[in-house]
Amino acid sequence: MRQMKLGLFLAPGGHHMAAWRHPEAYPDGVSVKTYLRFAEIAERGCFDLLFVADVFSFSPRAKRVDAFRLEPLTLLSALAMTTSKIGLVATATTSFNEPYNVARKFASLDHISGGRAGWNIVTSSANEAPNFGIDELSEHAERYRRADEFTQVVRGLWDCFEDDAVIIDKKSGAFFEPSRLRVLNHEGKYFKVRGPLSLPRSPQGNPVLVQAGSSEDGKNLASKYAEVIFTIQRDLESARAFTRDIKERVISFGRNPAHALVMPGVLPIVGRTRQEAQDKYELLQSFIHTEAGLLQLSRSMGVDLTGADVDKPLPDMDIAKLPQSRSVSIYQQSKRENMTVRETYEKLVVSKGHRQLIGTPGDIADSLQEWFENDGADGFNIMPPFTPGGLTDFVDHVVPELQRRKLFRTHYEGSMLRDHLGLPRPAARAG
Amino acid sequence: MRQMKLGLFLAPGGHHMAAWRHPEAYPDGVSVKTYLRFAEIAERGCFDLLFVADVFSFSPRAKRVDAFRLEPLTLLSALAMTTSKIGLVATATTSFNEPYNVARKFASLDHISGGRAGWNIVTSSANEAPNFGIDELSEHAERYRRADEFTQVVRGLWDCFEDDAVIIDKKSGAFFEPSRLRVLNHEGKYFKVRGPLSLPRSPQGNPVLVQAGSSEDGKNLASKYAEVIFTIQRDLESARAFTRDIKERVISFGRNPAHALVMPGVLPIVGRTRQEAQDKYELLQSFIHTEAGLLQLSRSMGVDLTGADVDKPLPDMDIAKLPQSRSVSIYQQSKRENMTVRETYEKLVVSKGHRQLIGTPGDIADSLQEWFENDGADGFNIMPPFTPGGLTDFVDHVVPELQRRKLFRTHYEGSMLRDHLGLPRPAARAG
Repeated sequence: MRQMKLGLFLAPGGHHMAAWRHPEAYPDGVSVKTYLRFAEIAERGCFDLLFVADVFSFSPRAKRVDAFRLEPLTLLSALAMTTSKIGLVATATTSFNEPYNVARKFASLDHISGGRAGWNIVTSSANEAPNFGIDELSEHAERYRRADEFTQVVRGLWDCFEDDAVIIDKKSGAFFEPSRLRVLNHEGKYFKVRGPLSLPRSPQGNPVLVQAGSSEDGKNLASKYAEVIFTIQRDLESARAFTRDIKERVISFGRNPAHALVMPGVLPIVGRTRQEAQDKYELLQSFIHTEAGLLQLSRSMGVDLTGADVDKPLPDMDIAKLPQSRSVSIYQQSKRENMTVRETYEKLVVSKGHRQLIGTPGDIADSLQEWFENDGADGFNIMPPFTPGGLTDFVDHVVPELQRRKLFRTHYEGSMLRDHLGLPRPAARAG
Repeated sequence: MRQMKLGLFLAPGGHHMAAWRHPEAYPDGVSVKTYLRFAEIAERGCFDLLFVADVFSFSPRAKRVDAFRLEPLTLLSALAMTTSKIGLVATATTSFNEPYNVARKFASLDHISGGRAGWNIVTSSANEAPNFGIDELSEHAERYRRADEFTQVVRGLWDCFEDDAVIIDKKSGAFFEPSRLRVLNHEGKYFKVRGPLSLPRSPQGNPVLVQAGSSEDGKNLASKYAEVIFTIQRDLESARAFTRDIKERVISFGRNPAHALVMPGVLPIVGRTRQEAQDKYELLQSFIHTEAGLLQLSRSMGVDLTGADVDKPLPDMDIAKLPQSRSVSIYQQSKRENMTVRETYEKLVVSKGHRQLIGTPGDIADSLQEWFENDGADGFNIMPPFTPGGLTDFVDHVVPELQRRKLFRTHYEGSMLRDHLGLPRPAARAG
């Protein structure tokens, strides 16, 4: 029977915008012990994977919007030593890295973790570019063309040595079989990479590829390569449309749609009663600092609102000039529901646009089940509102409910991330 | 009393060219368990640090010259979780990386390890350039100018947040103190980097800087920045001259010469008797495969000798055309001593040019002591001929002898790499 996949989206403190101020939240983003604890809880809950985003810009404002963060690969490599089954997915950008370095790091993590690595491919945001001598990111389509070639190079490097290439025969002195090595010699528009990688093929063959595309280019990149697709979906209708769209594109690229798992983000606030869940939500909302709220709203909309009067409505804007579809949807909902600026950030941006589920374990399981059984999702990327409390709530109360309904595993059947996700181990490509 | 510093230079299998064929050697360079074992033994021996080189080219030949290797930072981050005191020094090149990425990875490792990270600054070799779209490395001096600015940027990023910048006060919502943050805004010849780093200042203030310069440019870079200097020195006289030269340069850069520790590599072959040590050496020599020997000699000399007749002398060469001082020294010694090609690689390149010490624990301690007490070294980078056997020999027999002589610690006094090395914690630079 098909079962849902669950990821834990790691974030210091938690995913609610003001999570770090919650009395039980671990606010320190650079303490590895914090993450060890989260990983241990998620593995106890049989989660498929841990996922780390990568933010490498920092806003120099006193009120926290950005958190301090460990570099994803060093963090996950440490977690590989304290966990044994859970998948380890890190984000790495194709815009400010070299494909050789990325291929090597993820292959290395796959070896170190015994086959649990995954790479979330991103093309980065404009905020980060000035840390790399770039004043403005190249235009969207160009960035995605580069990402496409980057991904091809990385896969090619992972496949330089075939699975049976390594001999290591002390007697004869034969170390590997040269006929099973394919030097890459890639020459493309953006990259020229000789190869081979200085690592044999990793336990999973290739680390699992993950993407979170929402634009046309993004969805195509995801459909062409990704085995897991993260997405923001707030209602079932849109989630169904998105999933259908992705699976159709996957098929058009000649791939099996079952090997492209759609996993929307969910921020679950779990209470023993609905009232308790609601109280937990209100407590978190009470921690939103005005300055932080305005900053977060400014970012979500791509418009500077840091000086806005929070008790007035949003200033009028020209929709055609708003930078992204997300800006338009926030603006329209705010106006439609006559919200003040404060209400706008309190209601629409606290969970980075992701769906909030507030209720009992049964309520939350019902909603996840509904999406899962109606082509809205293959699984969910769980974003605890605050950690570890919000995570243990989910693992101790929602996971058992999903297990009772046979919607989720009760133990790990395999040891690699591909096993958990039901993904085949790819053969080395011929080049 | 001044005591010597000891590093363990990690290499899969060991540092003798044919080490991996030794019956007791762990030949697999991608098994993290192998390294965990080495790290555990070195920490039992109170070593100051583990050191990982970084080789990211791989020669497509059947007989091993290159080993498979894990990416250094992912490896050391894993080892950080299984060790508690030993320093963790990884190599990262300034030629194929971005300073922001390097600063972030090492700061992250320093946080994860509780203050045990070190960065070995290298400018890379020509072999590796084609993996990064570069047909030829830029010329030597240019590479070092870039490395210099790269190092400044990395240190600047490490110092963006002052030590007391982080507040994390849940009550007030204050996350850090903006007046204690200095956005970098670096604009130089090679790099333009805005900053700040998305991490607070790390436990050591700055990870320890390591360099291995032998050219003029290299020695200047080392003297300007490095707190540990690795070097190849085969006799005491040269080691004394090198150390004096480095310390003088260090002083000329306005630095304290006690804070630039010279640590030559040593390949120790330890026996209970001299005969036993000699037998161990001969056994290792017997494993050198002709093809691997010729390849290694070709690399060491920078001349293709893969087709040479091993029973004949080296072909005559024009010294002026040899690519490096090392090539000339091998050529001259081979000719002077009437060696065959086989003898040349057997005698002169098996330990990558580093000093071999073959003898009893007393013999080896004598030699290390002589260098240490006569301004030839502040410590040694130990290169076990094969691992783990050659390492346990050193830790179980030579270390206790050094401890009896009060030349080496019997326990760790502090918990950070700077503590072990007697290096001060740098204050954040003003910018």
